[in-house]
Amino acid sequence: MKLRARGILLLIIPLAAAGADPSAPVVLALAVIYAAALIGGELAARLGQPAVLGELLAGVVLGNLPLAGVTAFDYIKTDPGIDLLARIGVLILLFDVGVESTVRQMLSVGVRSLLVAILGVVVPFGLGWAVAAWLLPEGGPFAHAFVGATLAATSVGITARVLKDVGQSQSGEAKIILGAAVIDDVLGLVVLAAVTGVIAAANAGTEMSYGAMSLIFVKAFGFLVGAVVMGLAVSPRVVRWSAALRTKGAPLTVSLALCFVTAYVSYLLGLAPIIGAFAAGLVLESADYQPFRQRGGQSIEDVLHNLIQTFVPVFFVLMGMNTDLRALADGGVVMLAAILTIVAVIGKVVAGVAAGGGVNRLAVGIGMVPRGEVGLIFANIGLGLTIGGAPIVTPTLYSAIVMMVIITTMITPPGLTWAFGRRG
Amino acid sequence: MKLRARGILLLIIPLAAAGADPSAPVVLALAVIYAAALIGGELAARLGQPAVLGELLAGVVLGNLPLAGVTAFDYIKTDPGIDLLARIGVLILLFDVGVESTVRQMLSVGVRSLLVAILGVVVPFGLGWAVAAWLLPEGGPFAHAFVGATLAATSVGITARVLKDVGQSQSGEAKIILGAAVIDDVLGLVVLAAVTGVIAAANAGTEMSYGAMSLIFVKAFGFLVGAVVMGLAVSPRVVRWSAALRTKGAPLTVSLALCFVTAYVSYLLGLAPIIGAFAAGLVLESADYQPFRQRGGQSIEDVLHNLIQTFVPVFFVLMGMNTDLRALADGGVVMLAAILTIVAVIGKVVAGVAAGGGVNRLAVGIGMVPRGEVGLIFANIGLGLTIGGAPIVTPTLYSAIVMMVIITTMITPPGLTWAFGRRG
Repeated sequence: MKLRARGILLLIIPLAAAGADPSAPVVLALAVIYAAALIGGELAARLGQPAVLGELLAGVVLGNLPLAGVTAFDYIKTDPGIDLLARIGVLILLFDVGVESTVRQMLSVGVRSLLVAILGVVVPFGLGWAVAAWLLPEGGPFAHAFVGATLAATSVGITARVLKDVGQSQSGEAKIILGAAVIDDVLGLVVLAAVTGVIAAANAGTEMSYGAMSLIFVKAFGFLVGAVVMGLAVSPRVVRWSAALRTKGAPLTVSLALCFVTAYVSYLLGLAPIIGAFAAGLVLESADYQPFRQRGGQSIEDVLHNLIQTFVPVFFVLMGMNTDLRALADGGVVMLAAILTIVAVIGKVVAGVAAGGGVNRLAVGIGMVPRGEVGLIFANIGLGLTIGGAPIVTPTLYSAIVMMVIITTMITPPGLTWAFGRRG
Repeated sequence: MKLRARGILLLIIPLAAAGADPSAPVVLALAVIYAAALIGGELAARLGQPAVLGELLAGVVLGNLPLAGVTAFDYIKTDPGIDLLARIGVLILLFDVGVESTVRQMLSVGVRSLLVAILGVVVPFGLGWAVAAWLLPEGGPFAHAFVGATLAATSVGITARVLKDVGQSQSGEAKIILGAAVIDDVLGLVVLAAVTGVIAAANAGTEMSYGAMSLIFVKAFGFLVGAVVMGLAVSPRVVRWSAALRTKGAPLTVSLALCFVTAYVSYLLGLAPIIGAFAAGLVLESADYQPFRQRGGQSIEDVLHNLIQTFVPVFFVLMGMNTDLRALADGGVVMLAAILTIVAVIGKVVAGVAAGGGVNRLAVGIGMVPRGEVGLIFANIGLGLTIGGAPIVTPTLYSAIVMMVIITTMITPPGLTWAFGRRG
């Protein structure tokens, strides 16, 4: 499409240089994504499902139009600009989730979250390893461990959005899920680091250093605790200081700068940037913004929701677009994917039991199910790993993992809606 | 910085792949840009200047930190993600300006705008040609014509922002300036197309087709008239239809999709995408959004202003960053730039006289002065043009043109504030 559009341009305007603009294909992609998100979200809402499911499915339709011979929108899947906007969207989404939570609330569910997270890593890792050893004995222990690591991942973006859509983002379940997801992200990275480290050591003929593994672990928890402790001391002062500024909209600028800096520090430490964005939101209480609200009329939540509206559909439609329905034609892949999916769901639902009494444990478990972009990142890393020159993850296994990621992500919105509905 | 950050990452985390994220440097850049914009904007506000001047100057400081040995932020200047966000920012800014204007208002100042635009292209083009012929006789008529074309450009982004900052965006002056800027953009592209076309024809040994030039002209005006006529018929229906949707935030999604589609069509026709964004805003009257406002509590202006707050500082800080102060060390460049700047200002201020009675003609003229990104685009095209193998625009001329663009852009905020202040 990009090339074709340029072709038309060169055809009809011999002096196209004057109008050349690298943002043009991105802008077209955004318009297409917004139209798809609006149609999909509206249909989902009318069927009593969260809008995000509609956005994902609209993305699946859009992404598989080449099967119907329409390739005009195919460039969207790999456009770096759209990828960037999607990633910024996830950061802002997690930041907003953090702003709506308070540290006190998080600590009050801390032990439950910790238990859910630990079980949610250990059980899927064990089940994944066992299933891979059973179905793919020829893959060897490295492939088995890798499948386990992929199943241990959690992507909280979609759950955060569903919790918002069904009006549960302030519930006890939401706090436990989000707390667990943060811990889970750290644990998942440690597991992945361990697995890839062992493989790298095996290739080098040496052994993985437990010291290096512990370092990652310590750094991750140290960052979170440090960010929260520092943030609680600093952020009210920053907000109060910026409330004294004459610049209109300073709260938004300050908030975004804090969110992005913390996300970047998190990245520098080898953690997912969303951990930083969430931590930044956690220390910023919406009460701190009261002075701005009195002046400007808009609450920080309203402001952030406008940004979420702008960026986040890009992420979900894009995730849907990257689902290749042609993989469904391969029976072996489908069978492997189905078994991995079942194990992936069981592993996290079992972990939900650790949420304890007084909350909807099934909802907590289902909330932890989606592997989302974290699962896809893991799968892509696996595709690049080799042992003695042979790839650890075969194309068949990769397709199955991707399908598992997609299905766990797709079933979460209706599953979570159903789990909350059962209680109410 | 990008590489250095990766280096640190690889040093401290041997398993950085798990955390690799192409958005990380962009996110850091955004945080830096927001901090710079906030500090610069606040200082400007305290000195009674529009915030945008502070953002530009903060960008100049940030962009010239390498002179002080700090190269950590240098990657921001050429980061494609930041460039994309800046371009989206300009689109949303012009769209917002369009939303705040109505077609009726534009038509009421149509003749005045047309006169201002025509004078604003003819006078600077002639002056530019004459000055270039006087100072650079060895450049030949093509270089002289090219300087004229560059001086004919107008970038309305900065004026639109200043008009907002000084509370004049609904004034008669604003309507004339914006109307003239739209016509001017079209005329400027025609002039550029003509100049580049003549050069291309000279290289090919043939002559420029007047038919091709007329086609560009007809297409540009046809697009604007067509977009506005079609938009006026269609947009109230689209807005009313989307008001019946259950999806929260549909007004924002629909607005952005319309803005981006029209910008893309404008691009396909060889026009600047901002023309399309402005046209889309023009046909959308904020009154159409009344149903949403009653439901959601936020006006479309409030929503768009949050997006402007997020995207637009990126554009202005980046424009400042691309100002290389080292060019000031070359006396010849400075002299040429000074003369070009004087001519550039005189040309547009003279055009402001055509605004007629009852308005601040000086403010109209000064509002047309900035060449901004349009001037930079022109200069870059010139750098790529050759005649018989020799470049049309020498590095000296290029530096001078860039400095003229920067100075005309920099003096507009204080100039416009001063011109409005004189009246009141």
